[in-house]
Amino acid sequence: MNILLTNDDGIYAEGLRVLYKRFALHHAITVVAPDRERSAVGHGITLHQPLRKTKIEVNNGFQGYAVSGTPADCIKMGLMEILDRKPDMVISGINLGANVGVNINYSGTVAAAREAALYQVPAIAVSIKGHAFMNYDDAAYFSLALAENVYKKGLPYGTILNVNIPDIPMEKVAGIRISRQATELYAEYLDKRTDPRNRTYYWHGLDTQTSFKNPDVDVVALNENYITITPLKCDTTDYSMIEVLKQWEIGKKFNDT
Amino acid sequence: MNILLTNDDGIYAEGLRVLYKRFALHHAITVVAPDRERSAVGHGITLHQPLRKTKIEVNNGFQGYAVSGTPADCIKMGLMEILDRKPDMVISGINLGANVGVNINYSGTVAAAREAALYQVPAIAVSIKGHAFMNYDDAAYFSLALAENVYKKGLPYGTILNVNIPDIPMEKVAGIRISRQATELYAEYLDKRTDPRNRTYYWHGLDTQTSFKNPDVDVVALNENYITITPLKCDTTDYSMIEVLKQWEIGKKFNDT
Repeated sequence: MNILLTNDDGIYAEGLRVLYKRFALHHAITVVAPDRERSAVGHGITLHQPLRKTKIEVNNGFQGYAVSGTPADCIKMGLMEILDRKPDMVISGINLGANVGVNINYSGTVAAAREAALYQVPAIAVSIKGHAFMNYDDAAYFSLALAENVYKKGLPYGTILNVNIPDIPMEKVAGIRISRQATELYAEYLDKRTDPRNRTYYWHGLDTQTSFKNPDVDVVALNENYITITPLKCDTTDYSMIEVLKQWEIGKKFNDT
Repeated sequence: MNILLTNDDGIYAEGLRVLYKRFALHHAITVVAPDRERSAVGHGITLHQPLRKTKIEVNNGFQGYAVSGTPADCIKMGLMEILDRKPDMVISGINLGANVGVNINYSGTVAAAREAALYQVPAIAVSIKGHAFMNYDDAAYFSLALAENVYKKGLPYGTILNVNIPDIPMEKVAGIRISRQATELYAEYLDKRTDPRNRTYYWHGLDTQTSFKNPDVDVVALNENYITITPLKCDTTDYSMIEVLKQWEIGKKFNDT
């Protein structure tokens, strides 16, 4: 396959390097990634500043393009400017930190895969939970097996796979669970502090311990030491609400036709 | 109602001011908006810098909190730090420029509404197409009528309404069309230029003329001069793929359980 690799931790991140090493043994790889960490930028793109791309040698034959933008910018740059033809697949990761539940909204890793899907390129986002045991090698091996499955079997247009891997040795992984996105919030807070000039500032805080119980949701399955694979759609229309809304009378003045 | 207003064009934007003026005649309003334009930042949140909030008087009694972050940050700040209790509704807008089709992915305006829905607050995103005729007053009037409908009838948990208004005088508007999100790409390009130091840079370019035909999709309905209302879901799971994926064999080594 011809594969475009990206991430949101930046082109120097270990997760990307390990992914490259594993995939390059079997496939033709192009790396296009942010020139620095761009975590939690969601599906943002850069409209207010110009974009730059720089070809760099990261280490021992691992070359890539560093882009001065977001993960979604990297996909656009890769598809429109760097590659001569559409790649067979985009892999985004390996992200340091889980992208499950509501955090999928904020994830640059997942957004890169979604952006690829808009261009009808099959795409997989891969993340490792937490920081306990960084089994990047096994995660890369699993990603390769999954990618080759996707290549054989295909994905529907507009659907991506979001993969999360527990931070434990692979032999302790409970299995694979095909899951759905949790929509419950984590326990969140704003950590209020005072700077040396006596002015208030805040950090986003997050308690990832949850009381969620449903084994089908990604957050729970990952906590139970399963590798989770969650299929996600680009089309976010709530089709069940369309007929309901058609019955609403929304201001006579606007509703005559 | 107690209503939280935000936007992604920043607290000084005309669309927000007009929305405030119209809603404040009938409801208790709190404004929490970015301290500068934050268009196309998607659902990003600010993790690498602290957040600040500043109470400011924008003009003639229009006060609000300016936050040094994204629209989604503003919602978190409003709900967790500024308001004593959950508001009845969040309105995000009025954005200058349509948020339809794939652009919904990049939209800070829509992300703010989505963030509110994660907190189980009913939310509406409102945008005006293009720059031909900026009928903010009518758009605010329509938003108010819709908001009062939503308050009476409710929305399912995790569903927001994404509203787009054509840039023509309201008497020429064709009507209201309940629509779905277009997933086709616009004609996009990267505009390649050379700076005075002979280095290459790029701007995202976009041709919003489309050849889309399906009258149900938001892009087409808006081009046909309808006000579009598109219900969007926070849960992006592709449920139809879950059973398909359960049949895949994804690497024996990982698939034993």
